[in-house]
Amino acid sequence: MTRRDRSPEFDAGFKKKFRELVEWRRDVRRFRVEPVDRALLHDLVALATRAPSVGFSQPWRFVSVESHARRTAIAENFAKANRMALDGYVGDRRARYARLKLEGLTRSPVHLAVFADDGVTAGAGLGRQTMPETIRYSVVAAVHTFWLAARCEGLGVGWVSILDPIAATSALDVPATWSLVAYLCVGWPQEEHDDPELERLGWQAREPSGSALLVR
Amino acid sequence: MTRRDRSPEFDAGFKKKFRELVEWRRDVRRFRVEPVDRALLHDLVALATRAPSVGFSQPWRFVSVESHARRTAIAENFAKANRMALDGYVGDRRARYARLKLEGLTRSPVHLAVFADDGVTAGAGLGRQTMPETIRYSVVAAVHTFWLAARCEGLGVGWVSILDPIAATSALDVPATWSLVAYLCVGWPQEEHDDPELERLGWQAREPSGSALLVR
Repeated sequence: MTRRDRSPEFDAGFKKKFRELVEWRRDVRRFRVEPVDRALLHDLVALATRAPSVGFSQPWRFVSVESHARRTAIAENFAKANRMALDGYVGDRRARYARLKLEGLTRSPVHLAVFADDGVTAGAGLGRQTMPETIRYSVVAAVHTFWLAARCEGLGVGWVSILDPIAATSALDVPATWSLVAYLCVGWPQEEHDDPELERLGWQAREPSGSALLVR
Repeated sequence: MTRRDRSPEFDAGFKKKFRELVEWRRDVRRFRVEPVDRALLHDLVALATRAPSVGFSQPWRFVSVESHARRTAIAENFAKANRMALDGYVGDRRARYARLKLEGLTRSPVHLAVFADDGVTAGAGLGRQTMPETIRYSVVAAVHTFWLAARCEGLGVGWVSILDPIAATSALDVPATWSLVAYLCVGWPQEEHDDPELERLGWQAREPSGSALLVR
């Protein structure tokens, strides 16, 4: 059944604005304390479930981390992993790493842990026999959908990957087949930027994109 | 430096349209033969490089696969992996799997292989000590950005994951540190749908999203 007749067109104005959305999406680590409406959070998660998934397996699992004890466990997990990461740098890099703010765990009103269900039966294994990692890649697409949709609302998202994922999963008491893909801090940003903080602070420059397409 | 003064607002009209973009993005396997303008392809790849990446590592590597020999190798790789996948199903599932069209390798004017550079030095390792998989996750975010931007243009993308990734990487003659994340067929779709083909053909239903947020 062809549905071209009612398929949407995206005009020049939308495309320009979509480009701005992509360019102004940021990893946010500085949040205002105002809460995020739960209905809005649910709405963003629902839209995230429209992401592509291998074999239509829909393997994403979203957990809102709200208990003080669990948030503390995650903050301690980060602190430990970050100390170990710091110990891997020397000299000037080490001093610069120590000055970076790499998470907003303390102030962000919403903590969202996003898991892949490695035991998912939906999709009946289609598309993932030779590349089983596509289950987790599907979850990343949902995270990215959430991120862009949140930015549409002016809501900031920060992805914290400086965590021991096994310990984090254990602290959150989820089914044994779930693997942590992303731990997100979500809230209203204190400031807006069109450049990544790591670029602005001189940690890493943007690579030239002109040469980005190799031909084979 | 705060730049809130010039940060964009996304109004209700844009948000409605963005939702349509997410809902009408599809995995496309049926393409018209018309070519895709190379400038457009470059533009979409450049926008994809504005995706988030761990430690601003920008580990995505895009390869336009154009040689007949390499495309044939990929098509044979798919055919072999797909036969093995078919052999994993029995009875009615097997019959239904055999009827599915799972790729558009023969007709799509553009083949885009997207790799993660596991040896990337950009970012100096930041954010990926405990979760090194975030390098590949960053590439998935770039693929998803490309996919949405392509759909804005009316361009269809299909992600082919029924491939032996090691053999595919070898066939494409890329640096040894690159790992295949996604092999994309890109072109003008023959038809438009707001539901996934696997749902439409009864392979897998959409999961209810209402219960998608667990609280811990």
